Amino acid sequence: MNTVRGIFAPIATAFDASGEVNYDIFAENVRAFGATKLAGLVVLGSNGEFTLLAHDEKVKLVETARKHLPSGKKIIAGTGCESLKETVELTKRCAAAGAEVALVVTPNYYKKDMNDAALEKFYTMLADASPIPVMIYNMPGNSGVNVPSALTLKLSAHPNITGIKDSGGNIVQISEVLAKAPADFSVFAGSGSYLLATLVLGGVGGTLAVANVVPDYCAEIQERFEKGDLEGARKMQLALLPLNAAVTSRFAIGGMKAAMDMVGYKGGLPRLPILPASEETKKEIARILKELGVPAA
Amino acid sequence: MNTVRGIFAPIATAFDASGEVNYDIFAENVRAFGATKLAGLVVLGSNGEFTLLAHDEKVKLVETARKHLPSGKKIIAGTGCESLKETVELTKRCAAAGAEVALVVTPNYYKKDMNDAALEKFYTMLADASPIPVMIYNMPGNSGVNVPSALTLKLSAHPNITGIKDSGGNIVQISEVLAKAPADFSVFAGSGSYLLATLVLGGVGGTLAVANVVPDYCAEIQERFEKGDLEGARKMQLALLPLNAAVTSRFAIGGMKAAMDMVGYKGGLPRLPILPASEETKKEIARILKELGVPAA
Amino acid sequence: MNTVRGIFAPIATAFDASGEVNYDIFAENVRAFGATKLAGLVVLGSNGEFTLLAHDEKVKLVETARKHLPSGKKIIAGTGCESLKETVELTKRCAAAGAEVALVVTPNYYKKDMNDAALEKFYTMLADASPIPVMIYNMPGNSGVNVPSALTLKLSAHPNITGIKDSGGNIVQISEVLAKAPADFSVFAGSGSYLLATLVLGGVGGTLAVANVVPDYCAEIQERFEKGDLEGARKMQLALLPLNAAVTSRFAIGGMKAAMDMVGYKGGLPRLPILPASEETKKEIARILKELGVPAA
Amino acid sequence: MNTVRGIFAPIATAFDASGEVNYDIFAENVRAFGATKLAGLVVLGSNGEFTLLAHDEKVKLVETARKHLPSGKKIIAGTGCESLKETVELTKRCAAAGAEVALVVTPNYYKKDMNDAALEKFYTMLADASPIPVMIYNMPGNSGVNVPSALTLKLSAHPNITGIKDSGGNIVQISEVLAKAPADFSVFAGSGSYLLATLVLGGVGGTLAVANVVPDYCAEIQERFEKGDLEGARKMQLALLPLNAAVTSRFAIGGMKAAMDMVGYKGGLPRLPILPASEETKKEIARILKELGVPAA
Repeated sequence: MNTVRGIFAPIATAFDASGEVNYDIFAENVRAFGATKLAGLVVLGSNGEFTLLAHDEKVKLVETARKHLPSGKKIIAGTGCESLKETVELTKRCAAAGAEVALVVTPNYYKKDMNDAALEKFYTMLADASPIPVMIYNMPGNSGVNVPSALTLKLSAHPNITGIKDSGGNIVQISEVLAKAPADFSVFAGSGSYLLATLVLGGVGGTLAVANVVPDYCAEIQERFEKGDLEGARKMQLALLPLNAAVTSRFAIGGMKAAMDMVGYKGGLPRLPILPASEETKKEIARILKELGVPAA
Repeated sequence: MNTVRGIFAPIATAFDASGEVNYDIFAENVRAFGATKLAGLVVLGSNGEFTLLAHDEKVKLVETARKHLPSGKKIIAGTGCESLKETVELTKRCAAAGAEVALVVTPNYYKKDMNDAALEKFYTMLADASPIPVMIYNMPGNSGVNVPSALTLKLSAHPNITGIKDSGGNIVQISEVLAKAPADFSVFAGSGSYLLATLVLGGVGGTLAVANVVPDYCAEIQERFEKGDLEGARKMQLALLPLNAAVTSRFAIGGMKAAMDMVGYKGGLPRLPILPASEETKKEIARILKELGVPAA
Repeated sequence: MNTVRGIFAPIATAFDASGEVNYDIFAENVRAFGATKLAGLVVLGSNGEFTLLAHDEKVKLVETARKHLPSGKKIIAGTGCESLKETVELTKRCAAAGAEVALVVTPNYYKKDMNDAALEKFYTMLADASPIPVMIYNMPGNSGVNVPSALTLKLSAHPNITGIKDSGGNIVQISEVLAKAPADFSVFAGSGSYLLATLVLGGVGGTLAVANVVPDYCAEIQERFEKGDLEGARKMQLALLPLNAAVTSRFAIGGMKAAMDMVGYKGGLPRLPILPASEETKKEIARILKELGVPAA
Repeated sequence: MNTVRGIFAPIATAFDASGEVNYDIFAENVRAFGATKLAGLVVLGSNGEFTLLAHDEKVKLVETARKHLPSGKKIIAGTGCESLKETVELTKRCAAAGAEVALVVTPNYYKKDMNDAALEKFYTMLADASPIPVMIYNMPGNSGVNVPSALTLKLSAHPNITGIKDSGGNIVQISEVLAKAPADFSVFAGSGSYLLATLVLGGVGGTLAVANVVPDYCAEIQERFEKGDLEGARKMQLALLPLNAAVTSRFAIGGMKAAMDMVGYKGGLPRLPILPASEETKKEIARILKELGVPAA
């Protein structure tokens, strides 16, 4: 019934030492994630460093992902740009490259201009033009713009707007959407730290940075919840918090890529100006992984 | 095992037109709440306008509440002041007046001085001196000071610190406390909007402004959750959101008091400089109550 | 023409090791400041730890200050409380004790209730009742409440509201008040870091934490500006910034009291929960004082 | 001695009804500004909607501006992108197209990764590679990232970093830079609301949205200040505040473009998702222009 549900990893984009995208390593990660319990991948998500990529690189990453991911798993592409024009163009190109859903962050540099009327027009015109369903991406921590629940609910009536990934972490705002949205509108947790809370209130999945590190662990939280093992899901959720913080609020992209390297995926280097994790950070992440019981690769 | 658990209303303090406390009306509310499913009352909570009260008024309110509340129900008293000295004195007086637990907000005017070391010393010295158990009151929306989870966990080891009421609404921070606190450390939701999320993650109760309006409804959410009716609890939680917002973030104290009046309790006037709800606000609250199915008194 | 103008120190309140006010040391500081170029003192300001004092202590501090300060210098007393009732009472008591102006911070715990209508009513009713002129105290860094320029301008028409001390540091907001307020409405900088900017735009004085450490230096900035030596004033203003930051944003009350001790005034201990400066902080402050050319006492 | 000084307008980019750049109207504005007292233009500034433009459009706008602006007036081009790679490329292309200085906003989507080390590396590597001097663009209101004064001072030592445009409005931070930066490091006010305060403390110019509407008025503030007419400059500064607010904080880009239309420049339509000013907004802007004494075109 929902176009998307389940756990997605916002797959990292691997860069080499010269700052170029390494599509081979990216493909390797895609294949590795294809063998997990993940429902699919978000290509060009925040954790994919999408704002640091040229449009041609973006499209090639979607093509590569689609080629190497089993067909039963979905590709969601992050296609949001600052202008409506570019967002429409990129969405069409990514759809042609194999993306099944477009995850579209709010335009955000012109915060004072991004009032409800502007955001409503943006998402409506985009959804009208997009060949694939659109998922709203609320990411106030990076964008400084919040999509209020009333606006999300208005947009949820559009036949080509299929859900929201809410990375704001405001469980009340998420609840307000779940209280009144259509049943097939997919509400996703945007971080592993409030996955269970979102599911309990009616959410159907999550796009989680930490799923780049422990994909099956994340998927099991949802599995346990859905088969009624709330206590098991709760314990896994609580135990996940330190690793989740390490790859998001504490050490950000550099930390997430380092953690991927430690468990056998290929994080690689970030693109400048993002810096790689320091040695001290890596030690702390290794400690946290050990505490969670994740064996080093 | 927990010193406190269940749903508490942070009972309103009734003022008359001249701005004086009306203890008779207050007692009437206490008796009315005594006949509900509430586990007890918080006297001198934020919704009790505690910062607008003189110490003698505070102590008399605790005495009045204890006198009129059935002995099976608990009195938690809000005894936080800006100085440690006054907080200790008021806590002792309120304990003598019948309070069983002290709910103590962080000192907050000197935000830059309220670092972790200062807060740790404050709560530790208070708990050492207090004749009754102390509950931390995290209320960043009013205080501008947040008690980080790491500090709460440190304080949770003190034998006379019994729990935390977290009104910050950050479900991740609440989860971090629940992940590592002792089993008998009571974590309470500080607002009705994330009561179920808190319970699911291991919380044991809540102190909710909205429980001044629909006490049994709130208690039933916890009842349903505890007997395994997660779906029933979820539906009640989601339906409660508009009323909860109306008596907190949208219309604050004035709105909460107006809503109490509408359902048969006695909100009365706030004390200046807090203003009563406007007629327009009252109409909106009446609409929301009707939507929730609460009959007007 | 202005009721108040010039530089005021928000004098520290000295506490002894047992946490009691030491009125003798306080009087000593008052006399020492009486021999400087300061226009007067603010007793019970934020830097006087006013929220940590009982009302009787407050009144006694005003009496002590008035007794020991030369009659040509003014006493402004910080009389703001959370309730209008207590604020009026304390203002009357402080006026009787010798205060010539009341500096009244916005009530602030109930931030969501402190809308423009509530603040307007609060200041208007207070000014109606106060035997001495009222000065608005805008201190969003501590209070979390800002008085917008439009409201200040509205209040500036009240015959018993004589000015504003703006500690928000928003030079545009300060300018908006100066653009339209009556000529005899005194606009004061609330920190030494933007004293000159405030004077240039039309302000007539300042109440500055750093004036507890280098009172004559601060007064000279205004002197130079007023006699047309803008370049001299500018150089002094820029050189003052590190010390100003040290006794406010960086090391707060503990830092300010330590700096007072270093230059020959008596800062003494803060009252708990405020902690005294660490040894490391003291070293940094000593370094900054030396850089400014202030000799150790 | 300073590479740049004086007042610059961050010229608007004109779009037609289909959303395409109208270079003819843009050229017309350039020529009109060429006949004013402005020191030059910032092409691709925030008010030029630079994040909504493709790179080819950006370069063509710089070429057009250079072609139509008298050679005595400077072109500063906004060349900041999220990645260092793209920023270097665009800076080189804009330099080749005639830009004399690059104004480079902080990368900002990855706020948590944009720590001091990352920003220092970004600006240093950029300045090493850039054929033209680089000006730091601090714009926390749009970017959510602030360049602290200590970092600015560190960067001010680079021979190819020539100044900062600070749009944060924190006059203390601006002062901290002016206190210790080299004499030839140009500090610019980023908004017309604190132009005079910046000049008084040692700044040498400004890039002001409001200079798109009243360029000579803005330039006269600096003229008066520099020839010693502080009182005249002060009066003009204070009178400018309502118009400045209207074209920035109150009505943003849509408001600024409407105001340009009203006074005889060509604002034209914003590019979606930015919406044009409403009729109500236009009336308010017209009222404010009249109050300032600016005749409608």
